[in-house]
Amino acid sequence: MKIHVGIVGYRGYSGAEAVRILSKHKHIEVFLMEHRQDAEHRPEPLGGQPVQRIACTVDAAVSNGIHAVLLATPPDVSIALTKDLLPKGIKVVDLSGAFRLKSAETFTRWYKEDHHAPELFADAVYGLPEFYRDAIVGKQLISNPGCYPTAANLAIRPLVAAGVVDPSKGIICDAKSGVSGAGRKPTLKTMFSEVAENFNVYSVLNHRHVPEIFMNSGIAQDEISFTAHLLPIHRGILETIYFRTKGNPDANRILEVYQAAYANEPFVRLYEPGKLPDIQSAVRTNFCDIGFQLDAASGRLVVVSVIDNLVKGAAGQAIQNLNLISGFAETEGLL
Amino acid sequence: MKIHVGIVGYRGYSGAEAVRILSKHKHIEVFLMEHRQDAEHRPEPLGGQPVQRIACTVDAAVSNGIHAVLLATPPDVSIALTKDLLPKGIKVVDLSGAFRLKSAETFTRWYKEDHHAPELFADAVYGLPEFYRDAIVGKQLISNPGCYPTAANLAIRPLVAAGVVDPSKGIICDAKSGVSGAGRKPTLKTMFSEVAENFNVYSVLNHRHVPEIFMNSGIAQDEISFTAHLLPIHRGILETIYFRTKGNPDANRILEVYQAAYANEPFVRLYEPGKLPDIQSAVRTNFCDIGFQLDAASGRLVVVSVIDNLVKGAAGQAIQNLNLISGFAETEGLL
Amino acid sequence: MKIHVGIVGYRGYSGAEAVRILSKHKHIEVFLMEHRQDAEHRPEPLGGQPVQRIACTVDAAVSNGIHAVLLATPPDVSIALTKDLLPKGIKVVDLSGAFRLKSAETFTRWYKEDHHAPELFADAVYGLPEFYRDAIVGKQLISNPGCYPTAANLAIRPLVAAGVVDPSKGIICDAKSGVSGAGRKPTLKTMFSEVAENFNVYSVLNHRHVPEIFMNSGIAQDEISFTAHLLPIHRGILETIYFRTKGNPDANRILEVYQAAYANEPFVRLYEPGKLPDIQSAVRTNFCDIGFQLDAASGRLVVVSVIDNLVKGAAGQAIQNLNLISGFAETEGLL
Amino acid sequence: MKIHVGIVGYRGYSGAEAVRILSKHKHIEVFLMEHRQDAEHRPEPLGGQPVQRIACTVDAAVSNGIHAVLLATPPDVSIALTKDLLPKGIKVVDLSGAFRLKSAETFTRWYKEDHHAPELFADAVYGLPEFYRDAIVGKQLISNPGCYPTAANLAIRPLVAAGVVDPSKGIICDAKSGVSGAGRKPTLKTMFSEVAENFNVYSVLNHRHVPEIFMNSGIAQDEISFTAHLLPIHRGILETIYFRTKGNPDANRILEVYQAAYANEPFVRLYEPGKLPDIQSAVRTNFCDIGFQLDAASGRLVVVSVIDNLVKGAAGQAIQNLNLISGFAETEGLL
Repeated sequence: MKIHVGIVGYRGYSGAEAVRILSKHKHIEVFLMEHRQDAEHRPEPLGGQPVQRIACTVDAAVSNGIHAVLLATPPDVSIALTKDLLPKGIKVVDLSGAFRLKSAETFTRWYKEDHHAPELFADAVYGLPEFYRDAIVGKQLISNPGCYPTAANLAIRPLVAAGVVDPSKGIICDAKSGVSGAGRKPTLKTMFSEVAENFNVYSVLNHRHVPEIFMNSGIAQDEISFTAHLLPIHRGILETIYFRTKGNPDANRILEVYQAAYANEPFVRLYEPGKLPDIQSAVRTNFCDIGFQLDAASGRLVVVSVIDNLVKGAAGQAIQNLNLISGFAETEGLL
Repeated sequence: MKIHVGIVGYRGYSGAEAVRILSKHKHIEVFLMEHRQDAEHRPEPLGGQPVQRIACTVDAAVSNGIHAVLLATPPDVSIALTKDLLPKGIKVVDLSGAFRLKSAETFTRWYKEDHHAPELFADAVYGLPEFYRDAIVGKQLISNPGCYPTAANLAIRPLVAAGVVDPSKGIICDAKSGVSGAGRKPTLKTMFSEVAENFNVYSVLNHRHVPEIFMNSGIAQDEISFTAHLLPIHRGILETIYFRTKGNPDANRILEVYQAAYANEPFVRLYEPGKLPDIQSAVRTNFCDIGFQLDAASGRLVVVSVIDNLVKGAAGQAIQNLNLISGFAETEGLL
Repeated sequence: MKIHVGIVGYRGYSGAEAVRILSKHKHIEVFLMEHRQDAEHRPEPLGGQPVQRIACTVDAAVSNGIHAVLLATPPDVSIALTKDLLPKGIKVVDLSGAFRLKSAETFTRWYKEDHHAPELFADAVYGLPEFYRDAIVGKQLISNPGCYPTAANLAIRPLVAAGVVDPSKGIICDAKSGVSGAGRKPTLKTMFSEVAENFNVYSVLNHRHVPEIFMNSGIAQDEISFTAHLLPIHRGILETIYFRTKGNPDANRILEVYQAAYANEPFVRLYEPGKLPDIQSAVRTNFCDIGFQLDAASGRLVVVSVIDNLVKGAAGQAIQNLNLISGFAETEGLL
Repeated sequence: MKIHVGIVGYRGYSGAEAVRILSKHKHIEVFLMEHRQDAEHRPEPLGGQPVQRIACTVDAAVSNGIHAVLLATPPDVSIALTKDLLPKGIKVVDLSGAFRLKSAETFTRWYKEDHHAPELFADAVYGLPEFYRDAIVGKQLISNPGCYPTAANLAIRPLVAAGVVDPSKGIICDAKSGVSGAGRKPTLKTMFSEVAENFNVYSVLNHRHVPEIFMNSGIAQDEISFTAHLLPIHRGILETIYFRTKGNPDANRILEVYQAAYANEPFVRLYEPGKLPDIQSAVRTNFCDIGFQLDAASGRLVVVSVIDNLVKGAAGQAIQNLNLISGFAETEGLL
């Protein structure tokens, strides 16, 4: 017996990835919720799997027995849909930034738009299972983390919490992302001829993902310098993160801190000191891969954190959260 | 003393390439004609070269002493501007397909739109200098050839004219182009995430460049099968063209036919039998590079023709034509 | 209870793909057979799955209870290993071209090397299940088809067999492949800086995959013109195949021919007339996707056949064969 | 009357770029010096420009009247050739790291190999014209800077010299390079299938270019943290450099510092505060493009420095040096 899960925004890259992952999930049947028509399709073979398509309305969700909905939509759409779905008892995992920043005021400061359902912040939990698993289980509204903060927080927070780095000396997160992070809507900046054989910095210090980092990794806003770059690849994020250590830890100590934090985590993988993952290490998986190199003499520590922005950075983590709130094994469909 | 040349559509890939080439032309000063505002620019360094910008009007053209205009615009825009410019004695090199097909009826059949200045066909000459140089010199309106037909016609016509191939047995032109051929307007099909790590056929048998091929290479419409594919590269066209020979020519005979046709041509380069150019052979040049391999026993001949779609396939050839109609050396600015 | 399957050449692209696919196979446990040491590894996370590694010897195979071996090796290595493994009752699926061409003489003509076990041709069957399933079941030595011939034969043979095309008028197969088809050994031709932003023809008429095509699709050698191009992508093959029809079939008739041939085939997918697959349609799947466009008036038919060269063109098809000779469901691990 | 210039290593990417640039130089005739035969060529059209080829020996250089030699070779080859050429009065611009680090001891520490001509350090000058122009003019042996240090030093030194940044708080240089920086010798790491759709960190803190940075920008070794990444592009370097300011400069003050340093420099271009160059800004030019963004409140300054690694990072700068030591205009052939 499968539960019914609706997906809104299934033509976007994150939404399509969710459909792909869920097609192998043992306990879930997918319903595509038609939020808007989009004429441009890829060609489809004859005789493919029948797909359930329903209207993107609360009535359709109720009458089709939808248990939970994944929203791969912009914040304003997510807010409007969430307001309607929650009162019907339908669970929501929202992939937008609508509910990540704890208050409408903070949201507006970083997203430069109003928030039309501030009352929902009280119901939302930030869906980074490695940090907040207990709070996620049993919740009805999960705010799925941003792609950059997922890779950054998993790398930063254990070191800060263990006191082996000194955030007051500054943490530099130099982040590089594939183009799919910018969405599927055609823009000049994401055209092949602009991206290929090129590389650029597109956000310095003021990216709207920045507050998600300092709010969840135990540091102050000015302690993190975050820069986002656009890689000429489709998917994947690699972040090079620079720390100054505290208390002269050696490489084994750094590794122990990470191992203690992630000993039982199915989706965080560590590397021995001096071995570094590359983007292909994590692409098409729900893993966050973390490696580092330490210059103990000078106290400089460089950590490399890699995820697939469409999986652990979006759809995969959303399904990880969906599993948690639905009572399934957390890894179902994701290994 | 330089002549003044206006460029309309200078933000597109072909127009920008024309600006780049003309910046090194000894006898031409460029005027950017502002046909429409487009907010998205790349960052520009401080203190760059001053650029002449004028309105895209006949009055502005006249008052700035414009001698000739390059139109890197869609057919309807080209038609409207040409109608206004010619009566003022201003020469026009049009990069659109507006005047390539000899009649409004043929234009409408292939371009699926009306033609609002059929009277101008009488004034236009097809600007493939290797075939029509004498007709180009002295003309006021040059219809610059399409990118695919340039590579195809230069490869096909000499063989047909010399009688060493048999068009009645079919000529297959399997063409592959970089993404810049689709223009700079953002579309889903030209986004990085759709094009990279992909390859597709986007036009089979009915591409609107097809009539330019059979009308200029001495063959019948049904003798040419043309297919267009989209390569995950920015610029360059490679066409693999399949012939059946006539009269049992050997490889030397094929080479002689090409050498006789292009002995004095500065922009066609030949390769010894069995050596084939690749796209990088011609990228960023105004050359058309032609190589071939013959299986004499079975009479099968495969010709490979390569150009840069933005140079010999657009801006470079337009400047070659501009040189011819302005009395400059044909190669000025192009070697 | 799982059977033990050895993989030789598991560091190459095809071999690694086989390991990846088999890691999800219900009935197979993989043993990596160390044919040669290669120092260059990608970084590996700590605590990964334990992998069974054994020597690449018949003794090691026997003592580890190996039931079948996949050979992702060059022809000479495949021949030497096959000679040793078969007498021990171990099944072999060979991904090289060693046993595809029916005789040592034909092998030597196309591969330009001697064949040191001509006696094995009698035992080998060409492993294209869609054509030769009955002969494959129960065999001990399967010669896995080449990547290009797989896409070509599946597109050509049904049309020829049904008499709707005229091979005597020539069949042109213009094939384009990703770089992984050239293997993982570093060469100048496969370096990033030579391949990116480039495209070339690397084999005209005489590719060693040509005989696999005419020997398995019911046509004569001179009826097929095959050209291979190198795409700047990692994986995937698209072949554009040009036919002249016979008997004036319309598009529905062509579709019916394909549907009749592949009605019960799990790994061939068809498209409605005029819809064409692109490379991403088939990448990371074991499908061969076939679409076509017909110009009925002139009798010109263009078929587009797409596979992933590492899956249906190599490892996936090898596992399809492995399933058949081992008595598993043919699709196990492959959907 | 042209001077004769020999190029050793002309088949490598930097050497080939030097040949390309010099083909348009008014005062130089190129002689290709055959250091070693390499069978793999790209196809060449018939009737191309005749090229002067001579043996790579001192005798050949002398008898052909060679005035200067560009060495695009590994350090050991450069050292051996330089020892022979200098006594004959032939000038040398060496693109390797052989003479950049001021002493054999420092060379050996970073390059992990012996230096067989330590006596030549006294004759060598570090060829970064923007800093050392006066010392370069008149010298016989120029040590052309590394690609990474060129972009880093031009960005760092003026800020340090003006006292607007505090190096003691650490300078992070996160550098990203195209694949051509790794040379043309085939390796697994530079194969298309390993690089495309990937991105990795390949050197953390201990790259051999590090000493070139701190030795030429006025900082201490431990003040600079340098990391090198491999971009899936052919050419171009972008470095994101993080500083802490000193004395509360505003953005205009930072711009003034750069403008004062580079007012008369033909090959450094600046951007207004908040505008950042991307890799395509500088590719195929000899420019170093520098932009920055300042968060004045927190004193965090991010500078972006971009060059083409093959031009300003190698061949272009070598020719800039060649012009200086030969008495030509510094920009000849380079604009």
